[in-house]
Amino acid sequence: MEKGSLLYTGKAKNVYGTNEPDVLWVEYTNQATALNGKRKEQIANKGQLNSAISDLLFKYLTSQGVTNHYLKQISTTVQLVQRVTILPIEVVVRNYAAGHFVTKYNAPSMQHLVPSVHEFYFKDDALDDPFMNDEQIIALAIATQTELKLMRQQADMVNILLSNLFKEIGITLVDFKLEFGYTTEHQLILADELSPDNMRLIDDVTGNSLDKDVFRNNLGDVTVGYQIVLTRLQKLFTKLTEENN
Amino acid sequence: MEKGSLLYTGKAKNVYGTNEPDVLWVEYTNQATALNGKRKEQIANKGQLNSAISDLLFKYLTSQGVTNHYLKQISTTVQLVQRVTILPIEVVVRNYAAGHFVTKYNAPSMQHLVPSVHEFYFKDDALDDPFMNDEQIIALAIATQTELKLMRQQADMVNILLSNLFKEIGITLVDFKLEFGYTTEHQLILADELSPDNMRLIDDVTGNSLDKDVFRNNLGDVTVGYQIVLTRLQKLFTKLTEENN
Ligand SMILES: Nc1ncnc2c1ncn2[C@@H]1O[C@H](COP(=O)(O)OP(=O)(O)O)[C@@H](O)[C@H]1O
Ligand SMILES: Nc1ncnc2c1ncn2[C@@H]1O[C@H](COP(=O)(O)OP(=O)(O)O)[C@@H](O)[C@H]1O
Ligand SMILES: [Mg+2]
Ligand SMILES: [Mg+2]
Repeated sequence: MEKGSLLYTGKAKNVYGTNEPDVLWVEYTNQATALNGKRKEQIANKGQLNSAISDLLFKYLTSQGVTNHYLKQISTTVQLVQRVTILPIEVVVRNYAAGHFVTKYNAPSMQHLVPSVHEFYFKDDALDDPFMNDEQIIALAIATQTELKLMRQQADMVNILLSNLFKEIGITLVDFKLEFGYTTEHQLILADELSPDNMRLIDDVTGNSLDKDVFRNNLGDVTVGYQIVLTRLQKLFTKLTEENN
Repeated sequence: MEKGSLLYTGKAKNVYGTNEPDVLWVEYTNQATALNGKRKEQIANKGQLNSAISDLLFKYLTSQGVTNHYLKQISTTVQLVQRVTILPIEVVVRNYAAGHFVTKYNAPSMQHLVPSVHEFYFKDDALDDPFMNDEQIIALAIATQTELKLMRQQADMVNILLSNLFKEIGITLVDFKLEFGYTTEHQLILADELSPDNMRLIDDVTGNSLDKDVFRNNLGDVTVGYQIVLTRLQKLFTKLTEENN
């Protein structure tokens, strides 16, 4: 596989084409952003950690039957993925109240949300990714009712699988953000990344954040938490593999 | 009926009790506000005009079978209404893109929204009435799924009736805001007011705004438009009454 031209410079990844039209070359960078890109910093090792975590989580979802864009890791910060046409909607799932959900609605921090809440954000940097309801999205033809339903269903599947997985390693999955896109066969599948940049993870014993909140709230070196997440996932998957042999 | 003690000073109305526990005394004031109360002005005659328009519209909805809190007008600015326990949700219905809908989502101004869009806002001044989706409202127990459904249905009925009514007098109902509350018999009914303070109305011939946008956008004296709305409604209802005799 050969690296092609740069297609997109994102807030945390650079996306390149390859010699295969359906395959993208995704480079995880060390950049961390907050306030929708208004605050930016370089954090040594973050790209590697996110890439490694994303690799494990996508492989796990694949093993559990969740179709997704992931192909494989080809270096510590580079992954190959299936090229999709991203639907411009960010899907957030919340199991517990945190972040904006707490400040905007004055919800008690970590209130258990039953049932889990889905939120859709219009992926448009110029508009600051505005929050929208289903009817707005449908009326403005940003997505169809069927697409929203498919994304909710897949997000619920991811939520069940990842919540249980993290529970096994003493971590609570508070919330997370997903993106979906269309394959050339017009299948709407999970894409983008699965890393502590895009989810809130709480250590069940210490109560510490193991995610980007450490950066957002200036609580120290984020990579400490990311490394804990990665190490525990690696241990768990090693154990699971041994049990299966 | 005797006026009781002041219960609530709102942005556009003062609400008093009466000697009847189930009846409230609602005084329409001349105050106009924008930016959720941050900008305030007194506008001569506005209270009277809103009260007269609200009177006609509530009576019309009653005649068409839409149960609501309205009892009667007892002076040019005072109405008696059935006391309800207001559900802290503002229900917005949009037939065409305008206002925040245009700026937040970059929708073309006056784009026809099909189907009409419902939006729920949590009525909480301290939080600046945040926009919420159904799942958030249900998870935070601000309202139940059944309540949201009942409000959507009643709002749709109001929308059909008022859109057709305004069409008869050469006016387009662009969008509007409703409030609902529980009676002592636990019936969820339409409450608050029905006036150009809470709806966008466009003159079909001139294209002029006949509503509070004139104040919001500093386009002159709002009461000119309010008076046009009132005069046309009065003429229409006089004609309809004559036809029925
Ligand atoms: N499989 C894929 N095909 C095409 N685009 C993708 C795929 N997976 C992710 N993307 C897009 O690539 C970009 C990844 O870079 P990132 O730094 O996360 O960007 P952003 O600043 O938009 O969050 C995102 O815009 C994402 O939508
Ligand atoms: N039938 C009713 N019973 C009880 N409260 C009502 C009823 N109708 C309207 N209200 C409430 O009375 C207040 C009316 O005053 P207003 O100036 O519109 O207030 P606001 O600043 O909240 O918009 C509103 O808060 C509204 O919810
Ligand atoms: Mg991203
Ligand atoms: Mg009001």
